[in-house]
Amino acid sequence: MDGDGASSTGATPSEEMNGPGNLMNFLDEPFPDVGTYEDFHTIDWLREKSRDTDRHRKITTKSKESYWELIKSLLDAWSGWVVMLLIGMLTGTLAGVIDLAVDWMTDLKEGVCLSALYYSREQCCWTSNETTFDDRDKCPQWQKWAELMTGHSEGAGAYVLNYFLYVLWALLFSFLAVSLVRVFAPYACGSGIPEIKTILSGFIIRGYLGKWTLLIKTVTLVLAVSSGLSLGKEGPLVHVACCCGNLFCSLFSKYSKNEGKRREVLSAAAAAGVSVAFGAPIGGVLFSLEEVSYYFPLKTLWRSFFAALVAAFTLRAINPFGNSRLVLFYVEYHTPWYMAELVPFILLGVFGGLWGALFIRGNIAWCRRRKTTLLGKYPVLEVIVITGITAVLAFPNLYTRRSTSELISELFNDCGALESSQLCDYVNNPNMSRPVDDIPDRPAGPGVYSALWQLALALIFKIVITIFTFGMKIPSGLFIPSMAVGAIAGRIVGIAVEQMAYHHHDWIIFKNWCRPGADCVTPGLYAMVGAAACLGGVTRMTVSLVVIMFELTGGLEYIVPLMAAAVTSKWVADAFGKEGIYESHIQLNGYPYLDVRDEFTHRTLATDVMRPRRSEPPLAVLTQDSTTVEDVETLIKDTDYNGFPVVVSRESERLIGFVQRRELTVAIKTARQKQDGVVSSSVVYFTEDNPQVAEACDPQPLKLRRILNLSPFTVTDHTPMETVVDIFRKLGLRQCLVTRSGRLLGIITKKDVLRHMAQMMNQDPESIMFN
Amino acid sequence: MDGDGASSTGATPSEEMNGPGNLMNFLDEPFPDVGTYEDFHTIDWLREKSRDTDRHRKITTKSKESYWELIKSLLDAWSGWVVMLLIGMLTGTLAGVIDLAVDWMTDLKEGVCLSALYYSREQCCWTSNETTFDDRDKCPQWQKWAELMTGHSEGAGAYVLNYFLYVLWALLFSFLAVSLVRVFAPYACGSGIPEIKTILSGFIIRGYLGKWTLLIKTVTLVLAVSSGLSLGKEGPLVHVACCCGNLFCSLFSKYSKNEGKRREVLSAAAAAGVSVAFGAPIGGVLFSLEEVSYYFPLKTLWRSFFAALVAAFTLRAINPFGNSRLVLFYVEYHTPWYMAELVPFILLGVFGGLWGALFIRGNIAWCRRRKTTLLGKYPVLEVIVITGITAVLAFPNLYTRRSTSELISELFNDCGALESSQLCDYVNNPNMSRPVDDIPDRPAGPGVYSALWQLALALIFKIVITIFTFGMKIPSGLFIPSMAVGAIAGRIVGIAVEQMAYHHHDWIIFKNWCRPGADCVTPGLYAMVGAAACLGGVTRMTVSLVVIMFELTGGLEYIVPLMAAAVTSKWVADAFGKEGIYESHIQLNGYPYLDVRDEFTHRTLATDVMRPRRSEPPLAVLTQDSTTVEDVETLIKDTDYNGFPVVVSRESERLIGFVQRRELTVAIKTARQKQDGVVSSSVVYFTEDNPQVAEACDPQPLKLRRILNLSPFTVTDHTPMETVVDIFRKLGLRQCLVTRSGRLLGIITKKDVLRHMAQMMNQDPESIMFN
Repeated sequence: MDGDGASSTGATPSEEMNGPGNLMNFLDEPFPDVGTYEDFHTIDWLREKSRDTDRHRKITTKSKESYWELIKSLLDAWSGWVVMLLIGMLTGTLAGVIDLAVDWMTDLKEGVCLSALYYSREQCCWTSNETTFDDRDKCPQWQKWAELMTGHSEGAGAYVLNYFLYVLWALLFSFLAVSLVRVFAPYACGSGIPEIKTILSGFIIRGYLGKWTLLIKTVTLVLAVSSGLSLGKEGPLVHVACCCGNLFCSLFSKYSKNEGKRREVLSAAAAAGVSVAFGAPIGGVLFSLEEVSYYFPLKTLWRSFFAALVAAFTLRAINPFGNSRLVLFYVEYHTPWYMAELVPFILLGVFGGLWGALFIRGNIAWCRRRKTTLLGKYPVLEVIVITGITAVLAFPNLYTRRSTSELISELFNDCGALESSQLCDYVNNPNMSRPVDDIPDRPAGPGVYSALWQLALALIFKIVITIFTFGMKIPSGLFIPSMAVGAIAGRIVGIAVEQMAYHHHDWIIFKNWCRPGADCVTPGLYAMVGAAACLGGVTRMTVSLVVIMFELTGGLEYIVPLMAAAVTSKWVADAFGKEGIYESHIQLNGYPYLDVRDEFTHRTLATDVMRPRRSEPPLAVLTQDSTTVEDVETLIKDTDYNGFPVVVSRESERLIGFVQRRELTVAIKTARQKQDGVVSSSVVYFTEDNPQVAEACDPQPLKLRRILNLSPFTVTDHTPMETVVDIFRKLGLRQCLVTRSGRLLGIITKKDVLRHMAQMMNQDPESIMFN
Repeated sequence: MDGDGASSTGATPSEEMNGPGNLMNFLDEPFPDVGTYEDFHTIDWLREKSRDTDRHRKITTKSKESYWELIKSLLDAWSGWVVMLLIGMLTGTLAGVIDLAVDWMTDLKEGVCLSALYYSREQCCWTSNETTFDDRDKCPQWQKWAELMTGHSEGAGAYVLNYFLYVLWALLFSFLAVSLVRVFAPYACGSGIPEIKTILSGFIIRGYLGKWTLLIKTVTLVLAVSSGLSLGKEGPLVHVACCCGNLFCSLFSKYSKNEGKRREVLSAAAAAGVSVAFGAPIGGVLFSLEEVSYYFPLKTLWRSFFAALVAAFTLRAINPFGNSRLVLFYVEYHTPWYMAELVPFILLGVFGGLWGALFIRGNIAWCRRRKTTLLGKYPVLEVIVITGITAVLAFPNLYTRRSTSELISELFNDCGALESSQLCDYVNNPNMSRPVDDIPDRPAGPGVYSALWQLALALIFKIVITIFTFGMKIPSGLFIPSMAVGAIAGRIVGIAVEQMAYHHHDWIIFKNWCRPGADCVTPGLYAMVGAAACLGGVTRMTVSLVVIMFELTGGLEYIVPLMAAAVTSKWVADAFGKEGIYESHIQLNGYPYLDVRDEFTHRTLATDVMRPRRSEPPLAVLTQDSTTVEDVETLIKDTDYNGFPVVVSRESERLIGFVQRRELTVAIKTARQKQDGVVSSSVVYFTEDNPQVAEACDPQPLKLRRILNLSPFTVTDHTPMETVVDIFRKLGLRQCLVTRSGRLLGIITKKDVLRHMAQMMNQDPESIMFN
């Protein structure tokens, strides 16, 4: 985290001032920079929690002393809500700004608004003076580049010029994006969700949620989405929201100085991020709960909900879509669904599962290749090439030329009376001979058939290009591309079912489907079900997925189709591999993430996992009263452990406590500087009683009991590893000591646990990042 | 739990058969009835979990052997979903049946349908042949008792006769209810939620979720609600749903034999219960997560959602309200709300908080009096008296005579064009002189003013009577009465604000509120906000409350007023006492419930809590190789501990493991019966190596290492109690041993932790139930 950097520079001036003069007091105080962790290390949740309780206790005691302290304590109690409010407002604002900017820049690839350069096509046309819908659709104020430059809007020349400029703009945007990321904030790339999951589980990645990342990710997200690449803004918005959360944490020492409390805020920020991405506050909270968060107490649930709501309402106040709707894809369907339709819905679920499995395998294989081969050396070139291919292939097809969210929006839509889309080109000839039952006229017209072909091509294009796009060095979310794949497939299936129902309305299963005045089936619903299935297959979300979709449709009516598809897709995808895309990327990057959902079912015991192994040298321990300062310093120099167990003596090996490497280093350094008589041969005492100095000439002893953790976590060597894993998960431990009948045998760190789990699953154990 | 009874009768016949013949094999097997717990004891979550992992491992191994085993393993994997499906269907069906029966019996108090005796008033009138609305309202088929018996429908005589019969029916219903509860299922009384919370946290109350309870609670719930008492069916429906869950658990050994897994099912069942109570599946899941459940893994979240949806859809298929709506109080508002309205909304929140605090204090005081005085000896009389008072006071007031849910429904409703309610009696004279601004005609008519008076009386009546009703020996929920109190208060405030806005529409704050063709404000929204505030004040629900209300209104539009009121009410109520009504009842009954939300902030250490205390005799321990069978038997007889630590020797006191009392008793009994040479003087060995029998004449040793738990949970004596509490909560421990440098010092049980927490909060420590 950014905020920590300051405190690791050492003691603050005021503390250093009274240092030598008031030595004993100073030594009673905890050391200044002991609370923080090093980069790429895991935090100790229990310790963070007890530090917060201490802080809280202090404030409560003080608050009884004076009114000023009471007010301070009330402010402290309210700071959580203030942070949530600020996060919600900033996240909502940023999301609104991003939406507006993306809208404008996406249209910039095709043309420009003459009446006001900063208008997107839609704004340009709707603010024009034309009164009829038809005139507005023509929209003279909006000019394509070819028209503007050559004066001709039709013909091969104009087409080629438009094509060329479309590709050029796309390349420019993506080049800018990747350069900004490379130069200013390398952490701004990707979706960010795997890293945020890891951070929330207690890992430290400094700068990942910093101000620079926030700024650059926001700007490059706009550029990346506008460039027309097959990526979405939803994942990165979660990252942006978490950066906002981290930013506001630094305002309050309650959050900036406690890594555990900070993560509570970040969990809520993630909820706010999804809330503005889809306009689904409840879905956002459940997404944070189900997918992202690790430690999610009930208090956080309530605050997350607050942050998500504030964010959603801020976004609505900005109203970037111009329709005062909160949700991204607002739909309204008018036809109920029939039981028999569950068959195509479940088939869509199967498709979604297969897509999920294929995408994860393909994407991970490609990302691994990027990591291991020369490809990874040229990220800018890679982005340029992929953008070039995407733009060249996307332009000829009407359905891929536009932004992906517009495409999804159209696919979700029901064909109403005013719909001018090609997809709604049904033959509606009043003179034609009507079929017997007075069913509505829904035979597909030529527009629908040509749309089907274009959609099929778009489907293949999206499937292939998304696999290569996700993971490049630009901000990239995969919610939108996944949903697009599903929506295209769903709409195709929907039209097929509709035409079957229309042409064979006398078949028994289609009985009563086509009624006068209503559509036979709703192809848009199929698109939505397909989108849910594909998103589910890739991310393995369940409840949050269904709730987000429920918030989009706003009714319980269609929840059964959505659930059927989501369940099927999860099961199908799980058959090919348990991990979703985020877990796979976490594994690929070797982050020390202990998944709450993984069941550890092997029969190993703690003794099989603990170090030292049989062939290794014995555990590096300190004794309570026979180690000298020099010994300790050698030990610190020779090893890189995070801490050392303290035992009674080397013979009995009975465990007394555990001392952190960091605290030990600081304590010895400080003592050497400030305490008279502490030399290399001084004995370090961890005992309670004052050590008896045998002779006057002996060097001063160094008493370090105050830095000794007297309640280290222990398990016996016979403890089953499933219990150990459970303890590490639920208590958020960093390490755990292994004893047998009171004797210290070894140590198990989080890294050991992860490595063991990976081994048991026959994975590459070496990829786990250092602890 | 009911299901356990069978297994505690001893070994199954097949196991006993091969017992003596195949002694050694038998002794290697775990003992038959070791898995269960005694009544009113807490379960060990870690142990249950590892037992389930064992089971799962066995099935996975077996499934590779044959196709039959593979199918069995697949069935096992699917059984969770099957249970959810069954729970959903049964809960939905029961809820539908209860709704129908309550409807009919509530109307039976006033009259009867001549065309079909089993029709409720509404069904009776709507199936009549009259064609106009007015004629239907008159509804000749429906006759009040007086009309049927004397032929006169008007006049004082008819009124008195109706009054008398109303009271008589009410007394009959409530007498039947309390008698059934007393005779057949004492556990069927109350709301059940406090007990279910306790059970889900790992406590065993046998029969609480049994078949008899299910049956009697369903029947008596109908009687109690129909009797017109101030109680609702929502809490008891959760209990009924949990009984269904327990019932279906017994079908699958995976759930019936594992108390941990069983609780996962029960959590989901609770969600299904709330889902059918309000028609709010997402709210139900969040209620289960926020309010009821203890251990709620993500898998349970997903399954709960499934069960809640199945239940909701089953209920809709039964369609008890006749409007094919899923939700209990469906509302649609047409007027937006204004920022300034937040002031009355927040005031309603304050009212809700005050009501919550008052209700909890009053109700707990009354319940304590019931427990300690003669009052508790006459539960039937108490119910009769309260019913009599309720019926006598309720009949004269139109708003209390009807069922409470009808009342709430009317209060929530917007005054549409077709509304015939007294509350919508606005002066709407086309000839009157219109005010300047062409604002709509919303001056209140005489009907509204008389309604206000009646509502005010109803409010006082409901507030007082509810305090005495909740906790009687009949099924009684408090969602509906709480909501009624809030809805009445809210509607009154709403009408007041509306009239103020109408009469002073030129004031600056009311500017633009009253527009032509629309209402100034929506008094129904105030009722809803008030209901949410009061419910929140009593239960301290937050997210689930808002989500349930959101599902009722079906739009995000009104979520801000609801949240403002819910937050305010929670803060106000929290100022008077942290506990909600359920936690207060848990405390009153002394259930060993370790609340996840309580923060333990005291500075005590494990050494302050562990037993034995300084004045007490030393801890009862076994040694690994020097205790005789007789010693063990004496220890078992003299103490009532759940288990005994095993140490190396009395001198060193180094901890080896922990042995359960139950397993020890069974092992010694079995060995005495079936193993030759085991006599009172035999030495019990817990060591790994075979004991060396010194002389041939020595009695046979008894090896009991297999029942020794080699991984008992330990903490050091310096561990802060906040950490210990955290560990007990998160890992669901039963007990924990306390050591210092490997030496056993004492033991901390869940009961000790609870007693200590109660002491620290200055509560009565003796009220905690036995462990």
